[in-house]
Amino acid sequence: MSLPFKHLTSAKQLTPEVIESIFATAEEMEMLSESGRGDTLKNKVIALLFYEPSSRTMLSFQSAVQRLGGGMILAQGREGSSLLKGESIEDTIQMVSGYSDLIVMRHPEGGAAEKAASVSSVPFVNAGDGGNEHPTQAALDLYTLKKEFGRLDNLHIAFGCDPLHSRTIRSLATVLSQFEGNKFTFIGPESLKASEDLKSLLDESGVNFEETDDLSKGVEADILYMNRLQEERFVDHSEFEKYRKLFVLTADMLQDKNVLIMNPLPRIDEIEIAVDSLPNAAYFKQARNGVPIRMALLSMMA
Amino acid sequence: MSLPFKHLTSAKQLTPEVIESIFATAEEMEMLSESGRGDTLKNKVIALLFYEPSSRTMLSFQSAVQRLGGGMILAQGREGSSLLKGESIEDTIQMVSGYSDLIVMRHPEGGAAEKAASVSSVPFVNAGDGGNEHPTQAALDLYTLKKEFGRLDNLHIAFGCDPLHSRTIRSLATVLSQFEGNKFTFIGPESLKASEDLKSLLDESGVNFEETDDLSKGVEADILYMNRLQEERFVDHSEFEKYRKLFVLTADMLQDKNVLIMNPLPRIDEIEIAVDSLPNAAYFKQARNGVPIRMALLSMMA
Amino acid sequence: MSLPFKHLTSAKQLTPEVIESIFATAEEMEMLSESGRGDTLKNKVIALLFYEPSSRTMLSFQSAVQRLGGGMILAQGREGSSLLKGESIEDTIQMVSGYSDLIVMRHPEGGAAEKAASVSSVPFVNAGDGGNEHPTQAALDLYTLKKEFGRLDNLHIAFGCDPLHSRTIRSLATVLSQFEGNKFTFIGPESLKASEDLKSLLDESGVNFEETDDLSKGVEADILYMNRLQEERFVDHSEFEKYRKLFVLTADMLQDKNVLIMNPLPRIDEIEIAVDSLPNAAYFKQARNGVPIRMALLSMMA
Repeated sequence: MSLPFKHLTSAKQLTPEVIESIFATAEEMEMLSESGRGDTLKNKVIALLFYEPSSRTMLSFQSAVQRLGGGMILAQGREGSSLLKGESIEDTIQMVSGYSDLIVMRHPEGGAAEKAASVSSVPFVNAGDGGNEHPTQAALDLYTLKKEFGRLDNLHIAFGCDPLHSRTIRSLATVLSQFEGNKFTFIGPESLKASEDLKSLLDESGVNFEETDDLSKGVEADILYMNRLQEERFVDHSEFEKYRKLFVLTADMLQDKNVLIMNPLPRIDEIEIAVDSLPNAAYFKQARNGVPIRMALLSMMA
Repeated sequence: MSLPFKHLTSAKQLTPEVIESIFATAEEMEMLSESGRGDTLKNKVIALLFYEPSSRTMLSFQSAVQRLGGGMILAQGREGSSLLKGESIEDTIQMVSGYSDLIVMRHPEGGAAEKAASVSSVPFVNAGDGGNEHPTQAALDLYTLKKEFGRLDNLHIAFGCDPLHSRTIRSLATVLSQFEGNKFTFIGPESLKASEDLKSLLDESGVNFEETDDLSKGVEADILYMNRLQEERFVDHSEFEKYRKLFVLTADMLQDKNVLIMNPLPRIDEIEIAVDSLPNAAYFKQARNGVPIRMALLSMMA
Repeated sequence: MSLPFKHLTSAKQLTPEVIESIFATAEEMEMLSESGRGDTLKNKVIALLFYEPSSRTMLSFQSAVQRLGGGMILAQGREGSSLLKGESIEDTIQMVSGYSDLIVMRHPEGGAAEKAASVSSVPFVNAGDGGNEHPTQAALDLYTLKKEFGRLDNLHIAFGCDPLHSRTIRSLATVLSQFEGNKFTFIGPESLKASEDLKSLLDESGVNFEETDDLSKGVEADILYMNRLQEERFVDHSEFEKYRKLFVLTADMLQDKNVLIMNPLPRIDEIEIAVDSLPNAAYFKQARNGVPIRMALLSMMA
């Protein structure tokens, strides 16, 4: 199966048809992983450029390449790059296009992925560009929802607790707005509300959403999608310190609740450790889904 | 052959029976390496997480995975981790358990390995956790002794020159205390003597040991196991500067001596370069033994 | 085919015969890459030690190993090394010799490659040592010239704009001085002129060269080999700021000119972006040639 695009830079490209075909491939990939490693990419070299600290995304992409028997070239951290010397993203990508058959890049700068895709002669995958987009995260979040609920429509999803800064929340809400009957609750303090452009988009799509600063409302939804407060994006650090104590999900709050708890991780202290052992907790399963989804994308795009 | 544990976190797990079976496999691995690379791990993905500067341990583990044809995923330095963002070791390991079939971790914090093993769903190998444990180093040190002397008992081993801070000395002394007739000499300044708990353990095991601040006593032993002063563990830097000049092994001191010189490396200036070309010097051979030993552990545990 | 040396540390080893045989192998490698990946190195483990930020050289060496099916062990940045702990280059290389079948090293210190080669028990390749030598860059530059002009003699090459600090310019000029009828123009400000020892060497070889501070003279040559001003080597930063604005190649300057523009990259602002789309621009093709050349070297040396 192939995809209707060469480069994946934005969650907006994840239409219902695209999602369906990624999921079908991801299921095959789960079977492949159980029997060890395959050779789908044995004639390919995949470049993984991680110019920003990353743990989950970087390691699961590496794992995906290894499970598919691909060759891998790896730049990790700013030290592994000529960014330090002032090279443009476009020049870096034109160079790496000559060294590999597909490029995956994580970059601290919003918009970096579009710049990269505009010059890449090989397929390009955005693995997160600043506060902007992180489409493969959206794909694995959706895959988790599909596995847990059997559907992507008629779901009530609460998002907390930093709708303003979280690219993950923005991407996921955008994709889910394409499906019938979904309802959103955005949870967060007044100053961290979802951005106006996201809300306009939801209004245009006719999505029913509400906003609140009360975390306990989240446990009434089908899914409570939590995200750490993005410390690095606060200008005023005391504000960060104030909010991080207010928005903590505890095991007590989940008594007799069926709500599924998701989190793109890392978790700092926004979810109590005691929640991990409850049946509600889906975040480690969710992280695990990163491998088959990224295997699917690499095998379909390379 | 398999081992009687799932995770390797401490040199205490290296019983005589375990050591015997690791050595038997390591010998097979040396033959395999001579003919190139094998495929024992071809269906496995090994995660190497090195959250602290490491050279020998990291590269020899990489080499072991490559010689066994395994897939490898690699996080190197703090930049490659969510530790920077405040994630716990337990969360990191639960995630990486989903991406790999075995995890090797080096971490700056003592006790990190126990935390990791407590949540890992795949086999876990401690590649050094702070000043605490470094069991694969102990295994390769023992393998070196076995190859040079044909036995692990009835040996006189002198340890210098920082018995207090060296996890390597502690681990090796602990394992050797299980074998008959070994005798230890700890060499170091008054303030860097072996810790009380190590000495209690030796007393309980009935091991004969002595302490001295005279390095020349070390060359009378069968083995002089040298270790750099752990600069990073000194509070008072002037104390470090004082001792580093006092405890230097020279070629002159080894005239007409048969003592075998070992060192886990890096060597800073505790052994004169002129010693390298003497037959006593075993430290580069010792480093080389890291590959077959780590190949053995990976192939037995994965 | 094999080479008349075990270690490659200097561009001086690139005699016409050596170059001929590297090029023949590189052509085979280009065909191999088109059909995917080969297995020439399947029984080898290649160590890539990059102790200085590097992008192109590191990624193209990784790509070369992956295209040849080799095992790869990778140390990236100072964090991946015991240099931080004060270990000597010689000790590092003696250790890594025991872990791999060939070592590639990039190091910030001039002379590091000679030290490494003097103790390495396996073939060693210099991937750049400080301001000193970068022979594999010279090899790929020459390969680019050969592909574009069909010859390495009777060429007029202009070098700008930092002949003093650029190891790339020095290496390339040295090699080209072995061929008949080449003529050089060194372009740069008074304080960045080519070093006296390079000029003496050219005089001895009977090479015709001139010096100028006028960049527009460069477009009259067959090749204009541009190089960024090496910011990190300026003591006086204001001097760097002054020169970086004076020596910029624009598309306007290339109207009706056939001169081939080369650049080892990264490009900072010494070549206007508009030049990229002109037929003169060869620098991205040049970067691409790094892979077959490094594949050739690895397969001939390992």
